[in-house]
Amino acid sequence: MSNAQKKSIELASYLDRLFPILRSITGNGVRETFLILSEIIPYDVLEFPSGTKVFDWEIPPEWNVEKAQIKDDLGNVLVDVDDHPLHILNYSIPFSGTVSLNELQDHLYSLPERPEAIPYVSSYYKERWGMCVSEQQRQALKPGNYRVDIQTSLDPNGSLSIAEYVIPGRSKKEILFTAYSCHPGMGNDEMGGMIALTLLADRLLKKKNFYTYRFLLHPETIGSISYLAHRGKELKQNLHAGHVIANICWEQPFNAKRSRCGGKVDQILEYVLKHERYEQGVLNDFSPLASDERQYCSPGFNLPVCSIWRGDPYFQEYHSSLDSKEKISTDAIWETVDFFEEICSSHEMNLTYQNLFPDCEPQLGKRGLYPTIGASSRRTQELEALLWVLNLSDGNHDLLQIAKKSATSLKIISEAAQKCEQAGLLVSICK
Amino acid sequence: MSNAQKKSIELASYLDRLFPILRSITGNGVRETFLILSEIIPYDVLEFPSGTKVFDWEIPPEWNVEKAQIKDDLGNVLVDVDDHPLHILNYSIPFSGTVSLNELQDHLYSLPERPEAIPYVSSYYKERWGMCVSEQQRQALKPGNYRVDIQTSLDPNGSLSIAEYVIPGRSKKEILFTAYSCHPGMGNDEMGGMIALTLLADRLLKKKNFYTYRFLLHPETIGSISYLAHRGKELKQNLHAGHVIANICWEQPFNAKRSRCGGKVDQILEYVLKHERYEQGVLNDFSPLASDERQYCSPGFNLPVCSIWRGDPYFQEYHSSLDSKEKISTDAIWETVDFFEEICSSHEMNLTYQNLFPDCEPQLGKRGLYPTIGASSRRTQELEALLWVLNLSDGNHDLLQIAKKSATSLKIISEAAQKCEQAGLLVSICK
Amino acid sequence: MSNAQKKSIELASYLDRLFPILRSITGNGVRETFLILSEIIPYDVLEFPSGTKVFDWEIPPEWNVEKAQIKDDLGNVLVDVDDHPLHILNYSIPFSGTVSLNELQDHLYSLPERPEAIPYVSSYYKERWGMCVSEQQRQALKPGNYRVDIQTSLDPNGSLSIAEYVIPGRSKKEILFTAYSCHPGMGNDEMGGMIALTLLADRLLKKKNFYTYRFLLHPETIGSISYLAHRGKELKQNLHAGHVIANICWEQPFNAKRSRCGGKVDQILEYVLKHERYEQGVLNDFSPLASDERQYCSPGFNLPVCSIWRGDPYFQEYHSSLDSKEKISTDAIWETVDFFEEICSSHEMNLTYQNLFPDCEPQLGKRGLYPTIGASSRRTQELEALLWVLNLSDGNHDLLQIAKKSATSLKIISEAAQKCEQAGLLVSICK
Repeated sequence: MSNAQKKSIELASYLDRLFPILRSITGNGVRETFLILSEIIPYDVLEFPSGTKVFDWEIPPEWNVEKAQIKDDLGNVLVDVDDHPLHILNYSIPFSGTVSLNELQDHLYSLPERPEAIPYVSSYYKERWGMCVSEQQRQALKPGNYRVDIQTSLDPNGSLSIAEYVIPGRSKKEILFTAYSCHPGMGNDEMGGMIALTLLADRLLKKKNFYTYRFLLHPETIGSISYLAHRGKELKQNLHAGHVIANICWEQPFNAKRSRCGGKVDQILEYVLKHERYEQGVLNDFSPLASDERQYCSPGFNLPVCSIWRGDPYFQEYHSSLDSKEKISTDAIWETVDFFEEICSSHEMNLTYQNLFPDCEPQLGKRGLYPTIGASSRRTQELEALLWVLNLSDGNHDLLQIAKKSATSLKIISEAAQKCEQAGLLVSICK
Repeated sequence: MSNAQKKSIELASYLDRLFPILRSITGNGVRETFLILSEIIPYDVLEFPSGTKVFDWEIPPEWNVEKAQIKDDLGNVLVDVDDHPLHILNYSIPFSGTVSLNELQDHLYSLPERPEAIPYVSSYYKERWGMCVSEQQRQALKPGNYRVDIQTSLDPNGSLSIAEYVIPGRSKKEILFTAYSCHPGMGNDEMGGMIALTLLADRLLKKKNFYTYRFLLHPETIGSISYLAHRGKELKQNLHAGHVIANICWEQPFNAKRSRCGGKVDQILEYVLKHERYEQGVLNDFSPLASDERQYCSPGFNLPVCSIWRGDPYFQEYHSSLDSKEKISTDAIWETVDFFEEICSSHEMNLTYQNLFPDCEPQLGKRGLYPTIGASSRRTQELEALLWVLNLSDGNHDLLQIAKKSATSLKIISEAAQKCEQAGLLVSICK
Repeated sequence: MSNAQKKSIELASYLDRLFPILRSITGNGVRETFLILSEIIPYDVLEFPSGTKVFDWEIPPEWNVEKAQIKDDLGNVLVDVDDHPLHILNYSIPFSGTVSLNELQDHLYSLPERPEAIPYVSSYYKERWGMCVSEQQRQALKPGNYRVDIQTSLDPNGSLSIAEYVIPGRSKKEILFTAYSCHPGMGNDEMGGMIALTLLADRLLKKKNFYTYRFLLHPETIGSISYLAHRGKELKQNLHAGHVIANICWEQPFNAKRSRCGGKVDQILEYVLKHERYEQGVLNDFSPLASDERQYCSPGFNLPVCSIWRGDPYFQEYHSSLDSKEKISTDAIWETVDFFEEICSSHEMNLTYQNLFPDCEPQLGKRGLYPTIGASSRRTQELEALLWVLNLSDGNHDLLQIAKKSATSLKIISEAAQKCEQAGLLVSICK
């Protein structure tokens, strides 16, 4: 069995263990998830107490679920959260009692347009009880009485959990990857992000990095708000590039959305998306509409944070049980890790240098960097890259700009810069 | 009879009264015109004395016409200013005498390429006597003597008249509309501008406006120069957007020309001209060539003043009696008033706000601005508009920029901003 | 015989005299060349001593060639520098001795892909001996011994020669033309540049110029480095536009490359290349790859220097004896001089003015610049040019920008500016 095969089987077993866990914006399901992922990368788990004010918001009570069932009057269990974590209205308050079909209908959530799907519905900030069912299940209910047994707790002394892992680099400047951890029982729209980031961290841990890498798993919206209340100022000082990740489990083109503030995060994204194997992807303009970039890119923070996903963000199975574990592709997850690694290595290459011999060209021949014989043959791309790097390393051009102007790959430009640095001609001015 | 029909009949009767008046850059014809228009809007009439230095110019003597005729030697009146106000060379000095045909020819102005047209010719700053005739009239003249009787006065103690009307708004910032008042006996190229502005003022008077609106009727060139000498400094401080109007009486596409300095005046013009019903129009780059924008946009003032007209500025009938009253369309004039009103209401909507909750999103749910239940359905455009407005209201984006970035109409964006303002989330920073 | 014919015969005789001279980056061949060109323009010849440090480089010993031959063992001369100056490896050290064919092969340079061509090969900074032959000559050599007799001197007390000529203008601001003087026995890639510049200088000398014109002939790379070490600071202060010239002897489109810093040098180039007769040419983006712009545009100097050449820079005959005297077109050289003159006259026209009457238009009629009679005819382009120049002469627009905005030729705009200047309306703010 090849190493790749072994790793895929290992990945599949993680998916099997993580998928059935009932996650929400708080609660033990999230902690259990972080514990499993910590077998790969030893995450720190930060706990933010319920009731804490975070900007305009307040961290809600911690929600946990003991049991959630609907039985008919014969005692047959018709709906059970143990069958699928989507069966409970996320953040449902407890309720036990017998209700008529009419009354029950008001507390059931289904999708008439996708009759076989259990929808993902939540009510975090308004107290409601409810269960989510497929439209088929709803249609099968006959007039009569139903026994509802929702045993949940909403603990004002609980907390919200965030997993964080940092790989220090030579620079204090950070590259951030974040995925959300609050969606239960859905594969593409949630689970994949957490696991891809964890696998990326595992890879970067084995490298010598210039940048510091930060990995964050937190619930959508209230999670990023809590984290920004906690460490937003530091991020403002040090964040070089951030990436909000979603929907990366299917073999579809990589798409992305620019940050609100622009700059290097977008430029590297643009560069990588032009690589032949990613060129089907689309780089969209910024919008404050989708996930945690709404918080990271709020005008008060305006952090260099972009978003990355695969395929259509409004896919057919979105926010329902149709986004199943079976549809996850482990190959797609590995491709995603490769894509993220490409982004990271591009940032690592994209330094800015100062030419120490700015007046005329330095004499490259005497340093072994240039042929000592002049002839009619054209220079190699590698030789031309030296001239480009020396000419534009005035402190105002990063290597990506030089690569663009010279129509050369960032890799060749970066190698030329390193040769010049070794020869004492250039010095990096990145800190 | 509908209200619209009544208004059109009323408008037609104004046109009947205004058309025959002999206007020029000074004189009683202009005052009479302003008096009639003041039945709709009570204009202030400013008088600038002849001889006043205005920048590099001097206000000329006031010109009035008593009589202007050419008779043949049998005493038949061949040309008479009472038949058409274009028959006199505008600003002709007085002359009475008998002249040979040869001598007369030097003082006649006609258009060989449009033989039936009386041309509009003027000589404001050089003393000449003359009459304007159709080429057909000129060709019919036979050798012999002609009796010329031009009774005009050029009064060094006269004055130049400008009509002005101001509708104060909540802001000192002004939106200006100006049309010229000096062209006699032509419908499209003059009379329409004055009347459309007056009808616009009548409408705006009935609204609560943020901006202060200023309406100016003055002769071309010397009129705007005189006004700028009088109030140019104040305009420099307060002018938000200005519009020089011409040729709006025919049912043709609305065209416009950008201001010299760019900015909001042009952006709103661009926005309105993209509306479906105006999309045949062309927004031209600035040029210092046509009418009073030559003065308003001179480099020393460089005011945010654009130009608006309909159709081809070099239309066939231009500056001749072919630009007749009969060709005026009252529908076209009403359309023009609508177009101007659209510009005004777009400016009124295009405010700039500051988000009072810039760090992460404010919690919209608790303010009733966001659903308390999370589900799979897409957000409405109205809901997305709230997020756009909050995200970009950092003091650097006006609502038009937000509308463009979000591909939403200014109206929806403006309504979202008002909702946020009412909820205490935004505050307008326009003064 | 026409004057043009006479001048072409004269030019051809200069080519005959200059072509056979053995030039290099130093040595008597260069001095002899400058002496001949000084019959047209009295160049100053600057001498930079061997051994002088110039930035990161050192001026090499002066190289001169007495004799360079290869004979077979029968005493037949097989290769002789007197037959073609390319036959010696440029900067070959002296060597006399009998060598086997095998040993000789290591010291011969030829071009297998162009078997009839003698290549141009140099080894300025590494000591080598060698001869350059056609591949056909090489193939004809039979096993045996060969007598090599290379009598060259490398004088550490010699010097590097640069020819300079300055035509002072009213302004201290300079326009520079430079061509290289180091390539022996090639027509297009060298000789033409020197002679075209000299002929241009001859023309400009007969004009009254606003700008100061500087003409420089120097060896590539070490020549520009030496000159910049000598006068780079002054160039930084005064250089308005510089042009590095190469390959202008063949009737091919004029191509150019932008400067590194952009600005007027590029704008004028762009403007001239849009002229109908030059529109086949291409204006390339800056690259630090070809000739002396690598030094003039090094980041420490970043001078406004562009490059100009004709045809494909990687032409078939490049750096070999195929770039022969016979392929030179004297017509092409004259066309080149015309092209350069067009660039110069465009710079001369492209002044920047300040309007002394910036508030409203000045009254042109009273200054005889505008008709005193107003009529329906359209204004001439010359009249409109006056309005454009006055409106945009706010100190921030040069005449080329005004020409572009008004879609008028620079010539008409310049004439309008001169009229306004004569009327006391404008003043030039170029120094």
